[in-house]
Order: sequence, then structure tokens, then C-alpha cells
Amino acid sequence: MTGIAQRIRAGDTRLGARLMRCLDDGQPEAFAVLAELYPHGGRARRVGITGPPGVGKSTLTDRLVTAFRAEGQRVGVVAIDPSSPFTGGAILGDRVRMQRHAGDEDVFIRSLATRGALGGLSASARDTVYVMEAMGFDVVLVETVGAGQDEVDVANLVETAVVVTAPGLGDSVQAIKAGILEIADIFVVNKADYPDAKRAAQHLHLILDLEGGARRGWSVPVLETVAQTGDGLEELRTAIDDHGAHLAASDEGGRRAHRRAQMALTERVEALLRAKARAAITAYGGLGALVAGIEDRTLDPYTAAQTLMEGIEG
Amino acid sequence: MTGIAQRIRAGDTRLGARLMRCLDDGQPEAFAVLAELYPHGGRARRVGITGPPGVGKSTLTDRLVTAFRAEGQRVGVVAIDPSSPFTGGAILGDRVRMQRHAGDEDVFIRSLATRGALGGLSASARDTVYVMEAMGFDVVLVETVGAGQDEVDVANLVETAVVVTAPGLGDSVQAIKAGILEIADIFVVNKADYPDAKRAAQHLHLILDLEGGARRGWSVPVLETVAQTGDGLEELRTAIDDHGAHLAASDEGGRRAHRRAQMALTERVEALLRAKARAAITAYGGLGALVAGIEDRTLDPYTAAQTLMEGIEG
Repeated sequence: MTGIAQRIRAGDTRLGARLMRCLDDGQPEAFAVLAELYPHGGRARRVGITGPPGVGKSTLTDRLVTAFRAEGQRVGVVAIDPSSPFTGGAILGDRVRMQRHAGDEDVFIRSLATRGALGGLSASARDTVYVMEAMGFDVVLVETVGAGQDEVDVANLVETAVVVTAPGLGDSVQAIKAGILEIADIFVVNKADYPDAKRAAQHLHLILDLEGGARRGWSVPVLETVAQTGDGLEELRTAIDDHGAHLAASDEGGRRAHRRAQMALTERVEALLRAKARAAITAYGGLGALVAGIEDRTLDPYTAAQTLMEGIEG
Repeated sequence: MTGIAQRIRAGDTRLGARLMRCLDDGQPEAFAVLAELYPHGGRARRVGITGPPGVGKSTLTDRLVTAFRAEGQRVGVVAIDPSSPFTGGAILGDRVRMQRHAGDEDVFIRSLATRGALGGLSASARDTVYVMEAMGFDVVLVETVGAGQDEVDVANLVETAVVVTAPGLGDSVQAIKAGILEIADIFVVNKADYPDAKRAAQHLHLILDLEGGARRGWSVPVLETVAQTGDGLEELRTAIDDHGAHLAASDEGGRRAHRRAQMALTERVEALLRAKARAAITAYGGLGALVAGIEDRTLDPYTAAQTLMEGIEG
């Protein structure tokens, strides 16, 4: 093992953070370090917190950090912030998040932007989780806000998916995209002190009843919380452990681990292919001439793509 | 030009539909036909109708079809239905959609599922639009329902993006994802006969005011419609023409055409790369051994992906 990998495993937080930045930049050396670290990971408890904007996910995540810290557990947080593909978006800085944990060396928070290529975000979150595992964090919380597919992909990254909604979103259940309802291991109706919270919870119960009760042997709980005050947090903390015990006791844990391994491989292959395509485009001298041809219809995109592929293969 | 391409251009609807199915199956011969057709397209008026579920997009699209037909225009519709990545989802069949146009030979409706690889959907919708253009449709409407990124990608497929919301979604503006607010050329508050419709419209106006008025020289209108009765449809129809005139008169039309050409090329390259990866995986004998190694941490995803890439390159 290289010195860098060793120092990260030994708890060098600054080096861990630097590795994450190098991974973001796609540096091959950074992936070589990650390849060294990977065999030593896999022991962290990974929990996803996901749901529509405005339901209080960050406050809930903050409360969970406090709860795990009270048990002496070291906590990593991967926060995936929405950012428009058009503006590049502002990233909510790590520093403004969860300031109450700012002085705690056993809490490590990393924000990822949702900008850039699709599929890339999930791969980037996965890389970050691996680094946190190697850094020895006992718990890794992955908070996703915003776009639908990211929220579904998170299900392939964590062991337990907490799906959060809140009253005041109109049809608060419709606000949760269809694919996200299905990944929930635990439902949370946050802002349970608001009117209509009961109705949102009932709606979720109804959906679960329509499914015929248990999902692969696990009865999805519908919890009510008030993240602002901490009400219901203990029940959520317990439900996370209960679900972990369920995964360990059933074949569902193994099934998910298998799917995670599959996703890790395919995402990485896709990332390498994208890098290859970018290199071929650069070698071709950019896309300018091909795009101009497509634009004025003297060239079709299918023939143009084939031309580029020859550069990738050659 | 081959006989197939000629017959599609001459108006053989059944052959056009068959080509779309062959494109879905990824048949290389189908893309060869599309390459032949592409130079003869580009004259259809392409309009996107997008927004959160439940706002009445299908009814609105149906009304627009009627409006364009009343002008004697031939209309193609590409309807992108939500379907869960987990269940495979039920696709709302073409036949149950817009039954009132069932007997009209000058209306052609094609549904696409949102299942499968990301980015793939947008490429598939683009291929479908090209076929419809070659079939001589004057107008192509692209209706997207559901997932966030699809709704943003549609902006690169059409000339005019109509973003629809409705009261009764709680904060109906928050229900529209940030990236989608930004692609709107025309806002529609549908179900304008419901309470709170005025508030939803005011909210949109406020957002536009905060942007400082016009977007690249175009003042985005906020229209109120009742798709069920047809109220406000005439204004929407006019706004679509106004936006088309704006694109033609400003450099914005050319800028968008350039972006569309760029997207068409990169999407196609990505599709070919994915096909190549699939072939390499098959040649390797599947992912089984690699995934098993990643799962038990005797192999890391980075080294495993590199192994597969050698197969792709070789």
C-alpha cells in the first residue's frame, strides 16, 4: 500500500478530503489510491436520506448525526445538492451546513454538486463513500435533494433508504416520484406538527397496504418526526437499526450487496468510456465541423458518431 | 436512397412505425435508414410540453393536436411516459391516449417508456422525432411526464418548451424542478378554474421578474388554461407561434439549432459506446466473476472496470 492510502486509513482527514477533490477532477492516480483503499472498506453503515425539496432532509440528517455521535460513532455525510444543469448552480457550501458539528473531528461532511453528466453523480457519490469507509467512519449518511433519478440511484449506494416527505406539499405523496416510493425502507413524514401530517402518513400506509404489506419480508414503517425539535428521532434511529438487522438476518442484505457491486462496476465502466470519448473528440480537433454538418443537414448524426467511434477504437 | 426510406418519405405510416420499433431494438439497419432520412427533415415545428405529474399535460397536448389539425397541419406526438426503473412500469398505451384522434390519419402518436439507461431516453425521443419529420408531419409535439432530467433534456429536442403547472400541487412552483423553470419558453397554469390558480400564476410572474424580465430577448408569457374545456388554448396556440417568430427573428433560433446538433451527436456517440460496452461484457462471459470479486472485496471496481475496458479496446 502506498503512503497516501496508508495515511488516509490512519485517519489523515485532510488527505482524505484532498483525495475526494482529486477524484472529482478525474485524476487517474486518485483512482489508483481508491483501488488500494477499497478492499479495506465495507464496514460502515450506509444510510440514505432522500425526498422532495423543502421537507427538512438536512435538518433530519443533522439530527441523525447528533444521535450517532451520542453513541460514540464517527459519522461521514455525503450531501448531494441540486444545481441546475443550465446555470451550473450554487453549491451550498460544506461550511454553512450543519454548523453545530463544525468543531467535531469525528464528523466529516462532503457536498457534491449534481452538475455534469448523468450517472456521473452516482459514481462520484460512490467514490466518496468508499473514501469515507477507508477513513474509518462507522456511519455514512447520503443525503440527496432534488432530481428524481439521483434519488433512485442512491438506493444502490446505501443499505437503508429513508424517504422523507412532509405535509404542505399538496399531495405530498405525489411529490415523491413513483420510483422513489419503491426504494423506501423507512418512510418519514417530517414536520409532523403541521396540519395534514396525519393525512400524509395515512396516504403512505395506504400505498403500503396496496402493495400487500411487507416488501421482501420487511414491513416498511411510516414514522412521524419534527426534525426542528428532535421529536420522533429516537424512533427513526431505532428503525434504522431494525432494518440493518433485517438485512443481516435475511437474504435481502446479500441481494443488495450484489446489486451494489454490479452498479459500482457498470458506473465505473461508463465513466471510463466517457473519458475515452472526450479524448477521441479532442484528438479529432473538437466537434465543431461535425456539429456544423449536422446543423445544416449535410451530415447526419449517425454517420458523424460512427466517424468519432473510429477514433475511439483506433 | 433505399426503398424503405423512400416509402417512409412518401407517407407509408406503417413502415414509419416499424422503423421506430427497429430503432428501439437498436438494429443497425434502422439507423442506416435514419441516416438517409435525416437530411430531408428539419422542417417540422417541434414543441415540448412538460411539467410535474397530474397537471393535465396529456389533455393539453390533446387540445393542441385539435388546434393544429383545425389549421390543416399534420401532427406527430411523442409521449414519454413515466415508468419505474424497478417494476418496468406500465406504459400508457397509444390506443388509450387521445382516442378522439384515433381515426385521423394525419395524427400519429408514439409512446416511449422512460425505462432503461439514462440519456438513452432522450436519444430515443430524438430518433423518433427525426422519423416523424421525414414522414412529413408539420408539427411534432413532445410530451414528457415525470423524471426531472428528461424534462430538461427535452429542451434540447424541441424549439419551444411549454412548461405546465397547476394549482393544488401545494407550492406548485416548487413542484417544477429548478432546471425546468429555466427551460420554459411559455408557462401554462392549467386547471385555471381551480382556487389558487391566480397565486400560482403570480408566483411564476415573480420568478420571471426576479430574473429581470426577458430571457435572451423573449418575454416568457404566463398563460392560464383549462384544458378540459379548451379555455385559454387559443392564447397558447398564439404564444407558440409568437415564440417561433422570435426564434426566427433573433439569433436564439440558430443558437438552439447548434445546441440540438451538438446533443444529437454526443447522445449518439454515448449510445454506440454503451453498445460497445455491452458487447465487451458478453465477450468477457458476463460480469459475474468481476461482480463477485467486488462484492467480497477481493477485487476493486476500478481494476475490474479497467479489465473490461481492455476488452472494449481490443
